[in-house]
Amino acid sequence: MNTALIVAAGQGTRMGPGVDKLFLAVGGRPVVAHTWGRFDACPDIDEVVLVVREGTAETFHALARAARWTKPYRVVAGGRERQDSVWAGLNALAPATELVAIQDGARPCVTSALIRACLAAARQTGAAVAAQRVTDTIKDSADGQFIARHLNRARLWAVQTPQTFRVEVIRAALAAVRAQGLVITDDTAACELIGQQVQLVESASPNPKLTTPADVAVIELLLQPRDAAEGSRSAPG
Amino acid sequence: MNTALIVAAGQGTRMGPGVDKLFLAVGGRPVVAHTWGRFDACPDIDEVVLVVREGTAETFHALARAARWTKPYRVVAGGRERQDSVWAGLNALAPATELVAIQDGARPCVTSALIRACLAAARQTGAAVAAQRVTDTIKDSADGQFIARHLNRARLWAVQTPQTFRVEVIRAALAAVRAQGLVITDDTAACELIGQQVQLVESASPNPKLTTPADVAVIELLLQPRDAAEGSRSAPG
Repeated sequence: MNTALIVAAGQGTRMGPGVDKLFLAVGGRPVVAHTWGRFDACPDIDEVVLVVREGTAETFHALARAARWTKPYRVVAGGRERQDSVWAGLNALAPATELVAIQDGARPCVTSALIRACLAAARQTGAAVAAQRVTDTIKDSADGQFIARHLNRARLWAVQTPQTFRVEVIRAALAAVRAQGLVITDDTAACELIGQQVQLVESASPNPKLTTPADVAVIELLLQPRDAAEGSRSAPG
Repeated sequence: MNTALIVAAGQGTRMGPGVDKLFLAVGGRPVVAHTWGRFDACPDIDEVVLVVREGTAETFHALARAARWTKPYRVVAGGRERQDSVWAGLNALAPATELVAIQDGARPCVTSALIRACLAAARQTGAAVAAQRVTDTIKDSADGQFIARHLNRARLWAVQTPQTFRVEVIRAALAAVRAQGLVITDDTAACELIGQQVQLVESASPNPKLTTPADVAVIELLLQPRDAAEGSRSAPG
């Protein structure tokens, strides 16, 4: 079986004080409910594990009651760092779980097709991640003052979620991170430690993470039903 | 004197066939008019040179008549590559020009403060560029199939425009590019060829380039008067 592990325990600071970005309403629903709904609707997902902040579990149960999800779910308490939350989620997986899809709760535009492609890649190679080619021109700077080096954009990928793994692979990778006392920014970085290759799966459509207030408008647009979105995109006036 | 060199000769393909992104209406005005207006309003800019596609000059003159700009401007025809257009623009500069601010026509959210900061940096060091710290997690891949290397995000900057130069610096840098038959993606890359250091000037506010349809909503939001933008940003429902 395949399980979605939705990380919904973070506390973004860039939305401004007191704003929990996971519960911002976009298209009449909290952002995290959109994310959850995408996995609930994906035929390749059997169960959903939500890793949440202490004291917010009841809010997620209420969401589930309102949304009438079709897939079983569990809610578990997260930890201090993102990697602690993922670890807590892994410990809550059903024993029969073969593949796990780790997902940012604040990344609601993920598609069923992308989830399936990431799961298929992880089944084959052990680890995979949704990613998009970098479109900005990127420079390397040692001091933040002057450009040190131009980077070859053709080689650069921005990684997103889902990050998908055979369960034993991500368990071994995160155990190595914990044993060495490291703090990692994404789960694929843990794979480097154990020599596990990570396959890139190109996202066919935008898959942004809600981080700053400016992201709200983009995500609102992306979550609109197709026809409405096309309408608001046509433009020249 | 300081001159803005607005590159408005490109033909973006990612907006869909037949859509000229420079003339998409945002907030009731073509994108390129917003860009032009920012430089017209900046006290440190004395003149504006627009480099445009063959056959579109009259459209720009009409824009100028409608907008009643305060600064003198010239319209010149661009070339095949971006660097050819910049070269054509440099050849049209008034002889008294000391500093030039090269700007993407499709980057309308540039502020007066950013233009001034970039000009000040170029006056001091010869070359400078507006830039923002990279917020995505970036991986290097040799084959586009597997992650080869994790990049240290703390060293990565996405460069934007304005790119500002002492006129003799950018002339020498682009002459080197042309002599070697290279095609470069941004003007700061030309500086590397002649050993000219380029200073990074951090943009305090978002400064996106209109590239894909999804960018329209963000830019629309960013160009709203401050109060209106704040209103549409507050959210939890």
